[in-house]
Amino acid sequence: MKLRNDCEQIISRAITAVQPDAAVRRALKELPQVQGRVVLVAAGKAAWSMARAAWDCVGERLSGGIVITKHGHAQGPIGSLLIREAGHPVPDDDTFSATEEALALTQDLGEEDLVLFLLSGGGSALFEAPLVPREELQKVTQSLLACGADIVEMNTIRKRLSAVKGGRFAQHCAPARVFSVVLSDIIGDPLDMIASGPAYPDSSTCADAAAIAAKYALPLSAEAAACLERETPKELNNVRTVITGSVRELCSAAAGVCRELGYEPVVLTDCLTCEAREAGDFLAAIARSHQDTGRSLAFLAGGETVVHLTGKGKGGRNQELALAAAEGIAGLDGTAVFSVGSDGTDGPTDAAGGYVDGRTRDALAEQGIRIFDVLRQNDAYTALGACGGLIVTGATGTNVNDVAVLLIRR
Amino acid sequence: MKLRNDCEQIISRAITAVQPDAAVRRALKELPQVQGRVVLVAAGKAAWSMARAAWDCVGERLSGGIVITKHGHAQGPIGSLLIREAGHPVPDDDTFSATEEALALTQDLGEEDLVLFLLSGGGSALFEAPLVPREELQKVTQSLLACGADIVEMNTIRKRLSAVKGGRFAQHCAPARVFSVVLSDIIGDPLDMIASGPAYPDSSTCADAAAIAAKYALPLSAEAAACLERETPKELNNVRTVITGSVRELCSAAAGVCRELGYEPVVLTDCLTCEAREAGDFLAAIARSHQDTGRSLAFLAGGETVVHLTGKGKGGRNQELALAAAEGIAGLDGTAVFSVGSDGTDGPTDAAGGYVDGRTRDALAEQGIRIFDVLRQNDAYTALGACGGLIVTGATGTNVNDVAVLLIRR
Repeated sequence: MKLRNDCEQIISRAITAVQPDAAVRRALKELPQVQGRVVLVAAGKAAWSMARAAWDCVGERLSGGIVITKHGHAQGPIGSLLIREAGHPVPDDDTFSATEEALALTQDLGEEDLVLFLLSGGGSALFEAPLVPREELQKVTQSLLACGADIVEMNTIRKRLSAVKGGRFAQHCAPARVFSVVLSDIIGDPLDMIASGPAYPDSSTCADAAAIAAKYALPLSAEAAACLERETPKELNNVRTVITGSVRELCSAAAGVCRELGYEPVVLTDCLTCEAREAGDFLAAIARSHQDTGRSLAFLAGGETVVHLTGKGKGGRNQELALAAAEGIAGLDGTAVFSVGSDGTDGPTDAAGGYVDGRTRDALAEQGIRIFDVLRQNDAYTALGACGGLIVTGATGTNVNDVAVLLIRR
Repeated sequence: MKLRNDCEQIISRAITAVQPDAAVRRALKELPQVQGRVVLVAAGKAAWSMARAAWDCVGERLSGGIVITKHGHAQGPIGSLLIREAGHPVPDDDTFSATEEALALTQDLGEEDLVLFLLSGGGSALFEAPLVPREELQKVTQSLLACGADIVEMNTIRKRLSAVKGGRFAQHCAPARVFSVVLSDIIGDPLDMIASGPAYPDSSTCADAAAIAAKYALPLSAEAAACLERETPKELNNVRTVITGSVRELCSAAAGVCRELGYEPVVLTDCLTCEAREAGDFLAAIARSHQDTGRSLAFLAGGETVVHLTGKGKGGRNQELALAAAEGIAGLDGTAVFSVGSDGTDGPTDAAGGYVDGRTRDALAEQGIRIFDVLRQNDAYTALGACGGLIVTGATGTNVNDVAVLLIRR
């Protein structure tokens, strides 16, 4: 029970640490002091709660601002901030009018002013000011999709057809400084990808864009063709970016709880991408080789593993990872593996993840359940349910991927 | 080139450390001092080189002994030791006569005497004294194979039909002490499995044996049935065992070389068993998360990964592991992953393993080679050959599974 209790504590405290409000509060400790005005612009699916937390922390410093989130995601007024809802995943007229308001609020700022820019997932659709008519933007997007362009190619073109993407929003704010707080939902935190990087230097070039247009023989108006020839900013010396609420912080928070509980934590990675069950097998192999150190250890691996379906059972990547580890740690005392999705949802199930320990394999065998068969059926949910191994948190209000933990208690 | 040179050094020095002779020399530092005679018994495929090393170290203390190895594996006389060759993997008359000689040499020893027992893989066939006629032993073995008995069931029966397996050789030597040096070739070093554990307490019971006989309705003579009712030793207080030349020592030697080369080594595991390419992916994820520590790090994982064939190319598990990592470490400076089989053979190729670094992915792409496609074809050998990524050592004279290493040089 000790291990299971440790597991519950690690999960609940780590997820709390990556809630948008906690994450923003942490990031705002680094907010630069300025003499002039501070204008808030929040865009993305978590914009409302990020803005709410910012208002609580530094509301008295704000001279105004705007919050742009998905339709239905605003939860009420926040001080004097404008609250706007817009289309996602497809931008709509509300997107464009709200973004125009944001551009107006950040127009004509001086060197002593600051834009507090709060960005989260979904910002690509929610924060957009196209440089070509909306119809053409849609046509280009559809053409790119139809010819199988990848996400990098897509972004290279779209950034050039936008007045805010690819670093251009930060350029617009200059000479004011921009303090950008990014709630990351993409493994590896690629800042030019998250919401198409409105305040981050763009690494793609006009030459790249021209090559893509030629490769797919994109039909472009003269206006759009001219846009492709206008370079995006490669350097932005008025921006400071803090990534928060990422899987890295999830791992680091989980490691902190492990340490408080008496384990020596080792964060192996925060960008795991391999097959879920093989990651479980790898963690189990680490467990077997660290049984005799006499020390309590915790090995953590964050990221987003994948599952290749071979059956029609019920489960998710976190449940598969844990269940696969059960075979390799069978019989080991004081050893457990668990894995959990920070959003509280693992695959199409009501569980957030799975927990196994040295007794799980035999407990399942007593019920005639063989792990090998369960994995072949992708039915980890049923098996974990049969041995009390499901982790259920409910919706958590955040989404920064997963963390898997191996605990060895001595 | 620095990284590749480090790789070559780590491999060659780690493999040297697990050569049977080096491993035996290390183990013999713990040889107990006795007043009486010291008799050497060596059995297994590496028996000759183990005995040769022992003779060099402690030959003057030996009052005699016998070496039993596979036909064609003896390389000449060793002092006064009897040298015998016998059948493997199927025991033959030479097996039985040589084992009888060994039993005779270790008969009637006293408390002050010591048996130096050198055991290596293949000992199960090369060291055997059946308690039932040879024909019946073969018949029982064949019946068990035919009904799909697993290796544990097989051993539970066979140990009881043998005068030397399942701890009985050590029992025979009593009251003399037995110093058992085991060259391990099985992941996890299960001492009751290696050569069927002649000097290790047996964990299976007569009840287990009876259940297996009943389960498969084994046809047994009265003599064999009586054997199944005779218990194997559960405790042996005259034996001391040292495992040497195992994958654990391979990892530990490799870690030592890493340290000398300026890396901080972390041995993650010495019993890795997952899919080769997923292990490579996992190591690459560790690499990405440890780029900015400013420290030179080495992560090591020993064991024996597996490959599921989906194509008809050429390769081996070590080459697949390395090649899969190339995708994940692409673009990273001072970062390399390599994996090597300690016997110098990886799959049906003339390479021992593979080496990749942060430039490998692009070097392959320039030749039109996509890692994803190569892995689907199980054709790592060809791809690594195209970018100088094959590791070739030739036959090494030892076989203690594989080690994979991630190097991050700062």
